[in-house]
Amino acid sequence: MFESLFQSFQDLADPSQSASRVAALRAELARLRLDGFLVPRADQYQNEYVAPSEERLAWLSGFTGSAGLAIVLKTRAAIFVDGRYSLAVKDQVDLAIFKPEALTETGPANWLEKNLNSGARLGYDPWLHTPRQVERLGKAMQAARVELVSVEPNPIDTIWKDRPPPPLGKVSLHTRKFAGEDTTKKLARVLAALPPRDALLVSDPHAVAWLFNIRGHDVAHTPLPLAYALISKDTKPRLYIHPDKVDKAVHDKLAALVRVRNPEHLVEDLAALGKEHKKVLFDSATAPAKLTQVFAEASGVCEMASDPIALMKARKNAAELAGARMAQLRDGAAMANFLHWFATHAPNGKLTEIEAAQALESFRRDTKKLKDVSFPSIAAAGANAAIPHYHVTVKSNATIRKGIFLIDSGGQYEDGTTDITRTLAAGKPTAEMRDRFTRVLKGHIAIARAVFPKGTSGSQLDTLARVPLWNVGLDFDHGTGHGVGSYLSVHEGPQRISKLGTAALEPGMILSNEPGFYHAGHWGIRIENLVVVEEREFAGVEREMLGFETITLAPIDLALVEPKLLDREEIAWLNAYHARVRKEISPLVEPGARRWLASATRRIGVR
Amino acid sequence: MFESLFQSFQDLADPSQSASRVAALRAELARLRLDGFLVPRADQYQNEYVAPSEERLAWLSGFTGSAGLAIVLKTRAAIFVDGRYSLAVKDQVDLAIFKPEALTETGPANWLEKNLNSGARLGYDPWLHTPRQVERLGKAMQAARVELVSVEPNPIDTIWKDRPPPPLGKVSLHTRKFAGEDTTKKLARVLAALPPRDALLVSDPHAVAWLFNIRGHDVAHTPLPLAYALISKDTKPRLYIHPDKVDKAVHDKLAALVRVRNPEHLVEDLAALGKEHKKVLFDSATAPAKLTQVFAEASGVCEMASDPIALMKARKNAAELAGARMAQLRDGAAMANFLHWFATHAPNGKLTEIEAAQALESFRRDTKKLKDVSFPSIAAAGANAAIPHYHVTVKSNATIRKGIFLIDSGGQYEDGTTDITRTLAAGKPTAEMRDRFTRVLKGHIAIARAVFPKGTSGSQLDTLARVPLWNVGLDFDHGTGHGVGSYLSVHEGPQRISKLGTAALEPGMILSNEPGFYHAGHWGIRIENLVVVEEREFAGVEREMLGFETITLAPIDLALVEPKLLDREEIAWLNAYHARVRKEISPLVEPGARRWLASATRRIGVR
Repeated sequence: MFESLFQSFQDLADPSQSASRVAALRAELARLRLDGFLVPRADQYQNEYVAPSEERLAWLSGFTGSAGLAIVLKTRAAIFVDGRYSLAVKDQVDLAIFKPEALTETGPANWLEKNLNSGARLGYDPWLHTPRQVERLGKAMQAARVELVSVEPNPIDTIWKDRPPPPLGKVSLHTRKFAGEDTTKKLARVLAALPPRDALLVSDPHAVAWLFNIRGHDVAHTPLPLAYALISKDTKPRLYIHPDKVDKAVHDKLAALVRVRNPEHLVEDLAALGKEHKKVLFDSATAPAKLTQVFAEASGVCEMASDPIALMKARKNAAELAGARMAQLRDGAAMANFLHWFATHAPNGKLTEIEAAQALESFRRDTKKLKDVSFPSIAAAGANAAIPHYHVTVKSNATIRKGIFLIDSGGQYEDGTTDITRTLAAGKPTAEMRDRFTRVLKGHIAIARAVFPKGTSGSQLDTLARVPLWNVGLDFDHGTGHGVGSYLSVHEGPQRISKLGTAALEPGMILSNEPGFYHAGHWGIRIENLVVVEEREFAGVEREMLGFETITLAPIDLALVEPKLLDREEIAWLNAYHARVRKEISPLVEPGARRWLASATRRIGVR
Repeated sequence: MFESLFQSFQDLADPSQSASRVAALRAELARLRLDGFLVPRADQYQNEYVAPSEERLAWLSGFTGSAGLAIVLKTRAAIFVDGRYSLAVKDQVDLAIFKPEALTETGPANWLEKNLNSGARLGYDPWLHTPRQVERLGKAMQAARVELVSVEPNPIDTIWKDRPPPPLGKVSLHTRKFAGEDTTKKLARVLAALPPRDALLVSDPHAVAWLFNIRGHDVAHTPLPLAYALISKDTKPRLYIHPDKVDKAVHDKLAALVRVRNPEHLVEDLAALGKEHKKVLFDSATAPAKLTQVFAEASGVCEMASDPIALMKARKNAAELAGARMAQLRDGAAMANFLHWFATHAPNGKLTEIEAAQALESFRRDTKKLKDVSFPSIAAAGANAAIPHYHVTVKSNATIRKGIFLIDSGGQYEDGTTDITRTLAAGKPTAEMRDRFTRVLKGHIAIARAVFPKGTSGSQLDTLARVPLWNVGLDFDHGTGHGVGSYLSVHEGPQRISKLGTAALEPGMILSNEPGFYHAGHWGIRIENLVVVEEREFAGVEREMLGFETITLAPIDLALVEPKLLDREEIAWLNAYHARVRKEISPLVEPGARRWLASATRRIGVR
């Protein structure tokens, strides 16, 4: 009925080749006189989505999760994954070869200390680890008298005969209409944020994209151009990007502002700066150890810090916010069409998770503006919904029967990136489901309605989303919200609403508001809208106050709401939100969906 | 009418001697070939209250605040204080000599960089700064090419001719009835918390007091024995304490468990350990740089960390909690007597802040169990109440007229330390006062009623105390709560309810719950009870949950409550709290106070 173009539901994990590949790697390590080698799920930019050429971990082990690390020693091998993947990894890898372990900060180091002898040589690819990662592991290995050895080229690349070529996605200009600020102005702001005489190595491709108002096609789901940049007051900024990605029109536009260089020159350019004893600021979250090593060896002074661009990029300007609102209207209409379709077809009890995900992508594509999905949809029926990061494959594909269906999805549009989760009742929900859903909704509303002074961080607000669950002895094990980019990554920092969110929230930041509750083995609930931090002025304020504008527009399933648990203000919020959804979205959908929407957004009574 | 024995209201600041003392110091610095010297408000244990012999900053500058740093250079001098003292310092010091500056993390370093030339020598007393402080300042001075020079003896001591002798307060045993756990068991727990073969230098006298079940009389308001201890698996623990503080009975008791050593041997003992290449854990918050320097120079391996005793001490055992509840009953009765007295005498409009503070101390002394006040009372009428850390002196002493009177006070009893704040209406309060008081009360009740999963930190709860103020654009600029010791410091870590409170709350911890609101120049509000973290079990819980037991028992002034702002649950909490106060405290007070208490704790209606 529907098809998907931007996401695959194939089970990509293939451990059948692991034995021969690990054997080949061990032979290569022997040749290099190494006792072990680290294979992280990482590219040289620490991206969330990586190009096929960078899927070394999946190629070697079969593991396809978005975070993980394999360590291959002479006679044993382990794969470290976090709690999200602790079950899945056992299905994906050959357990005769890889022992699954917990990826905590000290997990790999402790395992290595136990399994390597004094004097051993442990190899790593300096492009795939940050300096901090190398430093931490190096300290632990020093205590164990193990030598940490930088290895180039990556031994996996040597043995991976049919490795895909690195991506050469075409770069496009992100026009002023969407970007809202010219590169000249952005560059001036970045330079002003740097100490005089210092340079900045921009190693986060999201930051490169923002700074030069360009987008790319090198990885899935995020319009990134894989590229570096070097910014200093002394010289024209340098953009290191493969020439095949940049056609003449784009090159001409860029060349007016920057010197476009082949990435192969980056190492020598940094070494040259180092010889002049310059200080360069490297982004501690994304810079590859290779670059700081080259620079430091040439006598440069490395300053590890957070790239100042991250915060500039997080504060969306008026054009970006206008774009985000437009994208949400469009996406909200696609959601309404999908929800109407779901309400029509779900009762027959035959829909599958994949069909639902395909339908939603299809409704989004019908907008004619969809560039990509912003991540593979989480379409989860019943017990699958209790897995917060579930990804449906043909193997796991469940039929949507009586109970709960959860769908977490988003679109990439040139004017904005969306991310929305709705939890839908299939058939009559139980009283327990309604109680839990309503508590999650109370938490969601508490965030949506929060008013707080400037300087407040997301960690201070996270609690508000949890109190209704805490009160009955429940909780959920993920953050309440993450930052969202502007036609960039659906996961963006430094803004976040979580215990770990120490950055102050600032006007213009876009975040998700997505509390949940998971009844393991049975069902799961999550309600997610995007919000924008905005200034709030009202009579009597003594402080500069902030609040959230909710920009996602789609009905919240009233079949799952227990009004008795909501107070007057919460009911008022829900009714006002639904009235807004009805008013904004109705004109954008067909009459059938419009009739459904009127009912789905009906006013509920105040107790 | 009443007198105070444990607190003084004299204005101790005396800047009249500053000119000659600073001149003498400069002469001494010239003799030592120093270009400057740091004079922190600190003793060698980083105590909150310091002995008179350690009041170098007050002696030199006149400044009597509890935190601050003077820097004396050849021709200029500055005094760095935090926001609490930014106004007071101008009254206390000779502004012709000391320029007041803001004490932020980088304040002194930035000022020094501006005011010292390359090649300058800046002196500091290595006993009065932690290694981290020295390291941070050292880095900044390195960049400015200033030499940081450790200086002994302290040049202030050389020129301070009538410096009081260091305190020699007698040590007493803190009996098992109050301590609840023998030193043998405590020592076993501490040793178990240390990595094998490592030793622990206990530099926090609170930790020494807890570990050896002793109390002392060396500083005001906290029953501390100024002492160090050295704990390792290899040898008998060593307690470094001046022999004159320990009489024979106490010595005999201690000597069964520990080797009692004169503090003058500590440096040589650490050097001896260092020569054996031992690793010693030093408490990063309290260890003097002198000791880590001596140890490192002798080839020891310094491990800077949090003293594991802090967390053990914070989790009170059953005996300590029973003691705390007893202390609260006694203290609550004294408070009821005071509040009754206040209600009787305040209406005549002649009471002063000092008289009120003296009366309260007197009612506490009437219990015959008061060992000290736990800090100098904050007794503040009108605009003085808007200063959170106000300290009344004969000079500032205001008459309590129509408006608000705030009194923040506490007692040291052998079974427990108390800390309570009540805000009282003198005459009919305004609608604004009632609105603000009720919002502060809502925040207080939100903390008192909070239920949260194990692992939750105080920083996650702090927000709950602020939401009712945030909602109308208001806030308060201090944490919501601090840890409280057991017949020890009224300010204890690591537990706290504040943005900075990252330690997980654990059963048995005692904290204050004290949100406030300050209308600068007019009046201030704070409502403070102590609470104990306790486990909570109830039907349906999926997680291990915690909550707070409120242990402070004294009426909250209903004249300041606006019931319309309270919801049903908040009114139920207030009525239940008052019913408990009435039931528990009535039997402990005289008939007059009892009648007053019955009215003060009357039930209010549910809206």
